[in-house]
Amino acid sequence: MRARVTIMLKPGVLDPQGEAVRRSLAALGFEGVEAVRQGKVIELDLATGDRAAAEAEVTRMCEKLLANTVIESYRIELE
Amino acid sequence: MRARVTIMLKPGVLDPQGEAVRRSLAALGFEGVEAVRQGKVIELDLATGDRAAAEAEVTRMCEKLLANTVIESYRIELE
Repeated sequence: MRARVTIMLKPGVLDPQGEAVRRSLAALGFEGVEAVRQGKVIELDLATGDRAAAEAEVTRMCEKLLANTVIESYRIELE
Repeated sequence: MRARVTIMLKPGVLDPQGEAVRRSLAALGFEGVEAVRQGKVIELDLATGDRAAAEAEVTRMCEKLLANTVIESYRIELE
């Protein structure tokens, strides 16, 4: 089973990477980009086929390692 | 309109970040993680409300700046 974790900075947390992308796009002539946020996506191939177990396990991975929950939020999708 | 671009290394391209995450998860006792790939997600707030125009514009952004198409693939989702 494959899990995809998307990790973004929480609203209100300064995102210098996203801002750098926004400025670069403007410099390249892309008008009409109002805001950019950059985050991470982590795809995990899991041995288990049990959906509920996989979701619980990936949640624990996020809380312990993958996300900094002080400043980041995460979303888990299972395929 | 919001666009989300997900950028992953192409299959076969070495992913040291993903491998570092896999090892860290194993060291923390998470068994059964067979492979990990790490990528980027970029959320863009666009002024336009025209879906086709937005998709064409974001595709050009990916080709020119956001993705390194030699080693990375990208996927665009519009909300």
